[in-house]
Parts: sequence; C-alpha cells; structure tokens
Amino acid sequence: MTYGLIGKFLAQPGRRDELVGYLLQAAELLGRDQGCIQYLVSSSDEPEAVWVSEIWTDQAAHDASLEPDDVRALIEKARPLIAGMSDQTQLTIHGGKGLPD
Amino acid sequence: MTYGLIGKFLAQPGRRDELVGYLLQAAELLGRDQGCIQYLVSSSDEPEAVWVSEIWTDQAAHDASLEPDDVRALIEKARPLIAGMSDQTQLTIHGGKGLPD
Repeated sequence: MTYGLIGKFLAQPGRRDELVGYLLQAAELLGRDQGCIQYLVSSSDEPEAVWVSEIWTDQAAHDASLEPDDVRALIEKARPLIAGMSDQTQLTIHGGKGLPD
Repeated sequence: MTYGLIGKFLAQPGRRDELVGYLLQAAELLGRDQGCIQYLVSSSDEPEAVWVSEIWTDQAAHDASLEPDDVRALIEKARPLIAGMSDQTQLTIHGGKGLPD
C-alpha cells in the first residue's frame, strides 16, 4: 500500500501561474527520484488554488526528497508566491487502475 | 491538460473496508475504459473516509463511464454503505511526473 499526499496551495493574488511553473520545475527535479512515483500539478475553479497530488513508495522517500540543495533553492524561490496551504491529506493507496510502475 | 477529480466518501460506521472493496471493483470495471487514465482508492487517518483520485482524458469520458449497466449495478450495491460525499474537486492537470500513458 503506497503513500499518497494531496495538498492545496493558495497563491498570492495573480501569481497562480508562476506557482504552477515552479511546481512543474519541482516535478522535473523529482524525475531522478526513484521513490517518487507520481507528482502532478493541477488547478481547479477556485481562484489562486494549486493542487499537488503525490504518490511515493513510502513516507521516508517523500521526506528525503525535500533535502537536496536544488530542491531547497526551488522551495525558497516559490515560497513568496504562496499565501497559504490547506487540506493536505496523507493517503494510504489501496489500489486501483493506472498506478505507474 | 487532463481532467482530474478528487473526492472523499464517508462510509457508514464500520463499513469503510467494504466500501473500499466496491470501489476497487469499480476500478476493475474501468480497466476496459480507454478514457480512464487513473482511478485510485485510498484511505486517510480520518475514520470512515475513502478517497478516490481519478484522471480522465476529458470530462465526457468520465461522464460516459457511469452509464454501463454493470457500473450502475455496482453503484446501487455500494450506495447503502455511503453516509456522505464531500470535497469533490474537479482539477485541470497541468503536468508533472508519472502521468500514465
């Protein structure tokens, strides 16, 4: 049973697309991370909201992913665009269709 | 940009695992559905909560998936186990890592 994480950021007014861009850069950095199965960046009809849906082999892999210098640098660049974070939920994924290998 | 859907069911008290089972059956039926890219069934630390994370080629594919007789029959079997539904959010997926083909 795989570790999932769903969370919603609220961007500063008018900055949502920039925040989406930084999070897509984060997804690119995670391309090298064997523990990261999925990291998707989405928006909804709520203004300024940006959703991140993550799947990891386990929670330790997620936590370790935040440590590399380039990830930290990216977080520092994105931080001023973030007005708030809410609804982050840890999930235990039981299965289904389309879980990437 | 792909169509996503995140939603949370609340099961009747003590019935969460049964509801998970029905939703995993739904995922099996969706195995034949070309428009369904991902359909994952998860739980969180909230008692009785069951999360479903869906990715579809477009909203029309999602809506059409609810029509077949075997899907309708499964919904009817699962319905008595469901105490409520909340937090369903439609997402526009901008990209990221690990989107299945």
